[in-house]
Amino acid sequence: MPVPLTKESDVDVLIIGAGPAGLMCANALANFGVNVRIVDQRPAKVAAGQADGYHPRTIEVFQSYGLAERLLREGNRVYRAAFYNPGPNGGIECTERSRGFLTPTARYPFTLTLHQGGTEAIFLDSMAALGVHVERPVVPTSIELSTVEEELKDPNSHAVKVVLKHLDAADATETEIVHAKFVLGADGAHSWVRKSLGIAMEGEQTDYIWGVLDFVPDTNFPDIRNRCSVRSHNGSCMVIPREGDTVRLYVQLSDADVRDTATGRVDKNKFSSERLLDIARRSLSPFTIAAPHGIEWWTLYIIGQRVASKYSVHERVFIAGDACHTHSPKAGQGMNASMNDTHDLAWKLTHVIRGWAGLSLLKTYEFERRKYAQDLIAFDKRFSALFSGKPRTDGEADGVTQEEFLEAVGTFDQFVSGTGVCYAPSVLTRMTHQASARGLVIGQRLPPRIFVRAADARPVDIHDMLPADGRFGVAVFAGDADMHIAALARSLDALLRRHAEQRGGVAAVFNVFTVLARSKDDVNYTDVPELLRPHWSKVLLDDTDMFGRSGGGGYDAYGIDRTRGAVVIVRPDGFVGTVAPLEDLSEIDDYFSSFMVGPGL
Amino acid sequence: MPVPLTKESDVDVLIIGAGPAGLMCANALANFGVNVRIVDQRPAKVAAGQADGYHPRTIEVFQSYGLAERLLREGNRVYRAAFYNPGPNGGIECTERSRGFLTPTARYPFTLTLHQGGTEAIFLDSMAALGVHVERPVVPTSIELSTVEEELKDPNSHAVKVVLKHLDAADATETEIVHAKFVLGADGAHSWVRKSLGIAMEGEQTDYIWGVLDFVPDTNFPDIRNRCSVRSHNGSCMVIPREGDTVRLYVQLSDADVRDTATGRVDKNKFSSERLLDIARRSLSPFTIAAPHGIEWWTLYIIGQRVASKYSVHERVFIAGDACHTHSPKAGQGMNASMNDTHDLAWKLTHVIRGWAGLSLLKTYEFERRKYAQDLIAFDKRFSALFSGKPRTDGEADGVTQEEFLEAVGTFDQFVSGTGVCYAPSVLTRMTHQASARGLVIGQRLPPRIFVRAADARPVDIHDMLPADGRFGVAVFAGDADMHIAALARSLDALLRRHAEQRGGVAAVFNVFTVLARSKDDVNYTDVPELLRPHWSKVLLDDTDMFGRSGGGGYDAYGIDRTRGAVVIVRPDGFVGTVAPLEDLSEIDDYFSSFMVGPGL
Repeated sequence: MPVPLTKESDVDVLIIGAGPAGLMCANALANFGVNVRIVDQRPAKVAAGQADGYHPRTIEVFQSYGLAERLLREGNRVYRAAFYNPGPNGGIECTERSRGFLTPTARYPFTLTLHQGGTEAIFLDSMAALGVHVERPVVPTSIELSTVEEELKDPNSHAVKVVLKHLDAADATETEIVHAKFVLGADGAHSWVRKSLGIAMEGEQTDYIWGVLDFVPDTNFPDIRNRCSVRSHNGSCMVIPREGDTVRLYVQLSDADVRDTATGRVDKNKFSSERLLDIARRSLSPFTIAAPHGIEWWTLYIIGQRVASKYSVHERVFIAGDACHTHSPKAGQGMNASMNDTHDLAWKLTHVIRGWAGLSLLKTYEFERRKYAQDLIAFDKRFSALFSGKPRTDGEADGVTQEEFLEAVGTFDQFVSGTGVCYAPSVLTRMTHQASARGLVIGQRLPPRIFVRAADARPVDIHDMLPADGRFGVAVFAGDADMHIAALARSLDALLRRHAEQRGGVAAVFNVFTVLARSKDDVNYTDVPELLRPHWSKVLLDDTDMFGRSGGGGYDAYGIDRTRGAVVIVRPDGFVGTVAPLEDLSEIDDYFSSFMVGPGL
Repeated sequence: MPVPLTKESDVDVLIIGAGPAGLMCANALANFGVNVRIVDQRPAKVAAGQADGYHPRTIEVFQSYGLAERLLREGNRVYRAAFYNPGPNGGIECTERSRGFLTPTARYPFTLTLHQGGTEAIFLDSMAALGVHVERPVVPTSIELSTVEEELKDPNSHAVKVVLKHLDAADATETEIVHAKFVLGADGAHSWVRKSLGIAMEGEQTDYIWGVLDFVPDTNFPDIRNRCSVRSHNGSCMVIPREGDTVRLYVQLSDADVRDTATGRVDKNKFSSERLLDIARRSLSPFTIAAPHGIEWWTLYIIGQRVASKYSVHERVFIAGDACHTHSPKAGQGMNASMNDTHDLAWKLTHVIRGWAGLSLLKTYEFERRKYAQDLIAFDKRFSALFSGKPRTDGEADGVTQEEFLEAVGTFDQFVSGTGVCYAPSVLTRMTHQASARGLVIGQRLPPRIFVRAADARPVDIHDMLPADGRFGVAVFAGDADMHIAALARSLDALLRRHAEQRGGVAAVFNVFTVLARSKDDVNYTDVPELLRPHWSKVLLDDTDMFGRSGGGGYDAYGIDRTRGAVVIVRPDGFVGTVAPLEDLSEIDDYFSSFMVGPGL
């Protein structure tokens, strides 16, 4: 009997886990033309329930990949938060309605809800158009890093060996050996990759336990289509309106509700959706709520607030998403944090694989995203404590006052919405000339803003000029005069050309466009040197549209002087990397020289 | 040898011609669930060129059928018009840039360009999802109306017999007999249906001849992405920016350019795209323009401005689109007028076929659309004369001044954009209580306006509350008090119930929603009686959104008193049918009684 030969192959990036974090990464890499494979142990995508909340920044990220149109069509928009507290008659009453979690700078000023299967489908269809499919059901059985120093330091070496097992193979044992340059573990809170690498989760295991319930309600609760935080003497719950007429309830449970007294374990089989709905019903009293069409999906959720001690091993194997941070569902952060992890990682991997940047660039992944996760955990702890604590009443003097609660919500709006996430200084975030664009925060995402296109007076959001295509954005705010623009164009082009040498030219590495502080009535786009407008669409004006409905005030909002101008470098993930004064472009040279490598440098 | 049996079948509506007019009708009928067939003599849809301009109102109509998202994604937006005239040095110079043809009330404040194949594909895909496909290549060979008076008067009779010939049948002779309740001839300027019915085209045959050229230009002309009217001493031309980088040029030709001196006929074979481009090049001097990637599509266009003497025979056979009106391409009206013809006809046919309205309702099709076509021809004549006339200069004292030209453009903006189209009083357009909504024009389309949804504070355009689903919109502007709202709900519901009897109930015939003149901070949607909000999404507030970006001022804009309120009846095509004061709903009863028939009345 012949010994079967084990299949063996190379790949640039192997992703383990096809939830939101893994799919965001796979789709981004596929878009950037990177050789990628993605495997998952589930035989099919999620069908219902699971993660469902998109915060404003995450919608902006979807837009940058061209995926927002479908997301916005399929999802439900949540514009308002309502807060309910115990009223004088024992039942709850509304004490406040606000735009909680939402920030004025958001391009999409709402939270969006869509079941996780909907999210996965958006990625799967986008990837399929690029020829990338999830291989499933497949599990990794071993992972091994090279121990040879030179191999680990050579970005081109396939330094990680992973054995995969195809669960649906004819004999259920078919294994495959994959040699990958890089591996991403996006395999959830119980991450096999994390455990295999011996990475510890840090933080306390708290006792908060929540039940989650998706259904179409019959109710007289007037805020059923708003995100509600309900604190009652009969327990707390949250209301999250979903697609169509569906609503999700998060119901706070006590140990007595769910723990097996003998083992101390939470056993979903000993619970039921009916009991969950019953607890919610008591919490929402005096309002009535029923599920006449049944329960679509439900689960129990135990909040463990932890963050991984490190995010990578030798910058060859990475973990992302729930594999490195788990937390309370209350701010709806989980999926957002996860997808933004790999949005950060994907372009960096791409630049390293292309040989444009050294392996050390990948250190910024942990630097940026672990700090964020730690902040998130710190926030979660404070928020959870406030939320799960007893409300302050006459009989409960130690309780949390409504004022304390609302202040916490207000303080963290920017953070939770994602628009305020700020990366600390590093090779990718240089603060030298922050003063040249005082309204932008270097290290934060470039705020959206409507400008008017010079060639056709079309109002466009500057975000639409910066698709996530792996390139650095070079936004030339050339000011209001055109005296020096020809000289500026030549200097800038010479500089970019050096960094783009043997990389396909300036347009392959840099997305150059120009923003003038001038009126659409005075400017011909043809007056701008071609080096600053590689296409007719690449000249914007800080002016209103033909009907004065939008546009104008962009220089002021960004804090850029209309006479002196500035060049803003936008990272491929949409974050402001650095700013340079027009009269001193050396900052741009220094910026790219600090992490780019190769023939041109 | 057996004699083959000719296939014979019944259908409610048979449409002949699958251009924009025929497809708009077929798609609408398919949406309304009407039994429809559509045939076309072309073996496939248009591939390039042809009609390409969407005016703002037409985009609104696409939105009402759920087709705007794709249209907006695929089309190019034109926001600005530029006017060029002879300058002092013999070449042209820009004398004005404006938002020509665009009106401030437009929801989509631009003209959109998309090649006709793109338009057809949008309809074909929408229809395919509903199981309706164009049968092609198929030509009608005979059409015959019943001569029996009772049959003609019975909307349920299949009073029209059409013989169809399937051109790709095996023996190229397969014929089929179709008995239709109604037939639409949307078969173009040379309409076989129109000729078969002996309907005359009225109007003069003018001498204007244009060449049309689609290509990706290489040019230094600064307005190449704006709609341009160019008048030069070397002839006139128009520039229409298209999808991607494509541009269309309309070039004015002289008889000497194109007519065969022997026969007097225009022969495209004796012309060439190179010659056309050469004429354009001279007209655009001193700017340069070239077609380095070749010509995508070109044709010659002879302007005949005519309108059919009637639009139907016995309200059983109709003609629409180019079959009843042809005109100059300069205002880009052709396809807009055509699709709006059948947008008007489709819901009327549906109500008659369902037995909700009598045949006489169909008389309003000709009444409304022929009047519009006549106005359009009158406009075209004036516009063409102005455009084709010589510019006034020192040596040309009889020429058209720039002032005259711009005034004509300005006067007709509303008309051309489609937002100002106004149907004269009829059973469908009752002016009795115009004073109750002074800011609306009964007979015009309901202007778009952002309100805020009471249940979730989502800003929504009132147009999105009124999809083209064949129902009449009943917008209850209930004012700022809720004292009488329960009584109002009961009266209105009783009234609508009578008109909906044996038709599936109120919700099958009427789309009821409520607009309150109150703040989102004070209103629970649950406070509105269920009769006035069949779903949680059906209560709007005249208030701003959570960020104050949109909304508010709707009652004032519509001229509805915030205390007294009004009910606005919106026809299934989006036009305001009538307005009733809250204290006198009899107007609504009178309105529907004037054309609805059947058991309830």
